[in-house]
Amino acid sequence: MVKDIVYTVRVEFGDCDPARIVWFPNFFRWMDAASRHFFVECGVPPWHETEKTLGVIGTPIVDTHARFVKTASYGDMLELHTSIAEWRGKSFVQRYRVMRAADLILECDEVRIFAARKPGDERGIRAVEIPPEIRRLCE
Amino acid sequence: MVKDIVYTVRVEFGDCDPARIVWFPNFFRWMDAASRHFFVECGVPPWHETEKTLGVIGTPIVDTHARFVKTASYGDMLELHTSIAEWRGKSFVQRYRVMRAADLILECDEVRIFAARKPGDERGIRAVEIPPEIRRLCE
Amino acid sequence: MVKDIVYTVRVEFGDCDPARIVWFPNFFRWMDAASRHFFVECGVPPWHETEKTLGVIGTPIVDTHARFVKTASYGDMLELHTSIAEWRGKSFVQRYRVMRAADLILECDEVRIFAARKPGDERGIRAVEIPPEIRRLCE
Amino acid sequence: MVKDIVYTVRVEFGDCDPARIVWFPNFFRWMDAASRHFFVECGVPPWHETEKTLGVIGTPIVDTHARFVKTASYGDMLELHTSIAEWRGKSFVQRYRVMRAADLILECDEVRIFAARKPGDERGIRAVEIPPEIRRLCE
Repeated sequence: MVKDIVYTVRVEFGDCDPARIVWFPNFFRWMDAASRHFFVECGVPPWHETEKTLGVIGTPIVDTHARFVKTASYGDMLELHTSIAEWRGKSFVQRYRVMRAADLILECDEVRIFAARKPGDERGIRAVEIPPEIRRLCE
Repeated sequence: MVKDIVYTVRVEFGDCDPARIVWFPNFFRWMDAASRHFFVECGVPPWHETEKTLGVIGTPIVDTHARFVKTASYGDMLELHTSIAEWRGKSFVQRYRVMRAADLILECDEVRIFAARKPGDERGIRAVEIPPEIRRLCE
Repeated sequence: MVKDIVYTVRVEFGDCDPARIVWFPNFFRWMDAASRHFFVECGVPPWHETEKTLGVIGTPIVDTHARFVKTASYGDMLELHTSIAEWRGKSFVQRYRVMRAADLILECDEVRIFAARKPGDERGIRAVEIPPEIRRLCE
Repeated sequence: MVKDIVYTVRVEFGDCDPARIVWFPNFFRWMDAASRHFFVECGVPPWHETEKTLGVIGTPIVDTHARFVKTASYGDMLELHTSIAEWRGKSFVQRYRVMRAADLILECDEVRIFAARKPGDERGIRAVEIPPEIRRLCE
């Protein structure tokens, strides 16, 4: 049994495009929030704290594959079911199922890493081994 | 030889997150603009015109798979190379390679459809056969 | 006593910029959602319905004046207190006070109109007299 | 004669809302980019450099007043004319006129400060005296 954590989104007028449906980049915005929300709900501290304790500044994405099943529009309430489908050495697969009541709107698998700053490189980042204390909280 | 059309993006401060790199949903924002730009450059009229002539209101996405290779940050100029990798019956694959000079930042394959409104359904959409006049302009 | 309706926002990582504070255009995104939320909570139907009954397609903004008092960052919960400070002939003043617990983050006065489409102009809009049935619901 | 620097924006489909006009928070997004662009064009280094040399991490906004004159929609090219209308002790007024060819779309006055981090406060910021080397470059 993996942890499945729900993040709720109200779709707003401004999230929709001239075709009157959600403009799809907004789904990635919401999934990114659901990703962080997953860690927060599991008890992982905010990244500005883990930066000091573990060097971890966040979980940047390296791969994402989304399948859009139904459209959504403003007034809809969406539930983003978020879980970790797989742990790898330096990466993990975060899985989302975006539901409107019983309707599947979107499903998505992301590969993310735990990132630290590159020493001596203001903007560079590198993958670190998955911190066992974080993994333990999320399982 | 497929048409390869370049859409240029200036990365701005507000496109970056507290890790000081581009917040990834913005890449989907830019790819969506590059998608429409591709059709405009090929001579396809804006969707509010094709809605009247062909019933086509846009090219919503049904599937996307992106691989993030390098990070980008504000001050960067990105070139989104956009092409149509495959035509299918009611869908097509739009391919993006996001470059910063010679560096590959991101590559992405999207499956999109040509959409029309569903009769009697204010917000529903349905896929239509690829209009041959549009395909001809894009090849 | 005017109606004061609260819209709640969770500040996300991606809402913040490299200075690690909310990137200010996001406040306008949230205030626009709070504006529509205000009407919904007052019992006004969604704009795609009022378009058919009253011709009203929304409440576009004509003037906004915001004062930024304190910064916010991810993890913060914000409450947007929204009210209508003044009704005029064809416009109204919508007022926002964005709070984080007892801290005032931002205050803003917007002038908005009730808009209808211009006949024979696909994208033009015009102001209409404030529909009395809408005003009644909001007072 | 004040410096007036133009920042050009292509309005995209995804910048527009179901009323088919630019969703107004996007104008603030573009004005923020035009603000930074103004400093870059004047020769001011990027903020991650001035953070090291002058302690300045950016120019957060403290007040903005915008007047929306005409709507815009996708396909439009907008020119944001940007200047500094006034220098004060610890703040300045940045002025924008957003034009579509000869049409005024929007005008806006922002009050901004030059910000530095607060010592011992991860996310706090404070206003600093306007660095004379920056002001000189901008006049």
